[in-house]
Amino acid sequence: MEIVSQQRLFDGRQIRCRHRSECCACEMTFSIYLPPQAARAPVPVVYWLSGLTCSDENFSTKSGAQRSAAMHGIALVIPDTSPRGDQVAGDPDGGWDLGLGAGFYVNATQAPWKPHYRMYDYVAEELPALVESQFPLDAERRAISGHSMGGHGALVVGARQPERYRSISAFAPICAPMDCPWGQKALTAYLGSDREAWRNYDASRLLEQGDPGIPILVDQGTEDEFLQSQLMPERLRRAAVNSGASLELRYHAGYDHSYYFIGSFIEEHLEFHSKHWIQEDRS
Amino acid sequence: MEIVSQQRLFDGRQIRCRHRSECCACEMTFSIYLPPQAARAPVPVVYWLSGLTCSDENFSTKSGAQRSAAMHGIALVIPDTSPRGDQVAGDPDGGWDLGLGAGFYVNATQAPWKPHYRMYDYVAEELPALVESQFPLDAERRAISGHSMGGHGALVVGARQPERYRSISAFAPICAPMDCPWGQKALTAYLGSDREAWRNYDASRLLEQGDPGIPILVDQGTEDEFLQSQLMPERLRRAAVNSGASLELRYHAGYDHSYYFIGSFIEEHLEFHSKHWIQEDRS
Repeated sequence: MEIVSQQRLFDGRQIRCRHRSECCACEMTFSIYLPPQAARAPVPVVYWLSGLTCSDENFSTKSGAQRSAAMHGIALVIPDTSPRGDQVAGDPDGGWDLGLGAGFYVNATQAPWKPHYRMYDYVAEELPALVESQFPLDAERRAISGHSMGGHGALVVGARQPERYRSISAFAPICAPMDCPWGQKALTAYLGSDREAWRNYDASRLLEQGDPGIPILVDQGTEDEFLQSQLMPERLRRAAVNSGASLELRYHAGYDHSYYFIGSFIEEHLEFHSKHWIQEDRS
Repeated sequence: MEIVSQQRLFDGRQIRCRHRSECCACEMTFSIYLPPQAARAPVPVVYWLSGLTCSDENFSTKSGAQRSAAMHGIALVIPDTSPRGDQVAGDPDGGWDLGLGAGFYVNATQAPWKPHYRMYDYVAEELPALVESQFPLDAERRAISGHSMGGHGALVVGARQPERYRSISAFAPICAPMDCPWGQKALTAYLGSDREAWRNYDASRLLEQGDPGIPILVDQGTEDEFLQSQLMPERLRRAAVNSGASLELRYHAGYDHSYYFIGSFIEEHLEFHSKHWIQEDRS
């Protein structure tokens, strides 16, 4: 693992790293924010999964999350959204919703994606193992969050491996990728046309199958241009009601799909995660 | 004036506007953040001048300033850093430190810059007159701030027209443009080789000539790659000591020249400006 850059921010450190990923069979870049508290003891960590077209830099530079991360003593780990490099396939149609920047946090089974597009394993296993061995992170206090495609990723990873996380949160997540154009395009390409294989990557189907047993917070703006066509939070709510999963779904009047929406509520998400660590630690 | 976009942010509104500037003889774009308090009464306003290569979008998306602006009820007005458009001259050498994105907040007197590069008058007169007539802003509580080239702009505008502002602040400003490569290149191009004409755009010379009578806060990172060669804050400090100007110059260990530095201390700057409004209103 190589440190590409390191910058001071809210008395902590914003670090950009590059490493060889076995999982994705290419070089991967990620960012990590270490709050000042990490200089003294291992700190809890929120994994942040970004949306379509993003790299590790969008959340790092635009969310303002490091302010409350520093206040609450939380590390932020921010992976890229797909494998990258000359050898990695992109969307043959030149779209921004498949391929580079659009890995959808799945393990692809289809050509030409299969050798590199293993973003599920990367964000759920390989990257945590790496960063938790290299930085002062407390693996007992892990949470996962994300935006849009990354909100989908956070819900899916958290619902499938709840034993690894204390809590899940998402901003404007793609709640039912099997039922929306972005999801159908990506799942067809990466997993093939057998829809049975898609169910493991659909948060609403996963929540319907069972309560993961950890709390989930979802924020959604009412002026989000993708709300009806791509995001479908009511589908997730119905699934949670059916299985008894602990989902708090909040609508925010007037907010759109941008980082301005994330910036406005990221502090509340970090406080949500913090609260559940503290509660569990006390009980 | 045309509203290009409008987004909800910390319960207020981030608005992007385009208008015909008489001063710059071209279309200009700026952004304004209106905090929620502006829905009820006119609010105080901080004019923010950005650095080299920036547009109105960098500070808007990267500083996180709207959070504390919403908390303290402050509007932020964020102009572009130069005139733009097909008819506007750029650096003939293709540099990023002259021409487009690098207006240096001067009124150019030399060809080919003269017809459009009038950024001093634009940020000090034309833009305030426009936004203060179009939005609920309290012109009695105006402050000015900026970063790098924009820190230079804020110091120069504030020192030359202190009756218009309650306070000045700057992040890593170019304190003595007559003495550094960025400043010498720009002032030679825009104003010609007569250095007497440059003095009106050099914050250290201006502060030396007299105390503007309003408080000034300057923050500077110790790991700023431009500190010694371009910024020269000690030159500004000597000038302030000589004239008795109220300058607080703070060094921050480990911080660089980036928006991560601005983000870490912007809240303190807005609190600094707020405090002086409140004190003056009470006295």
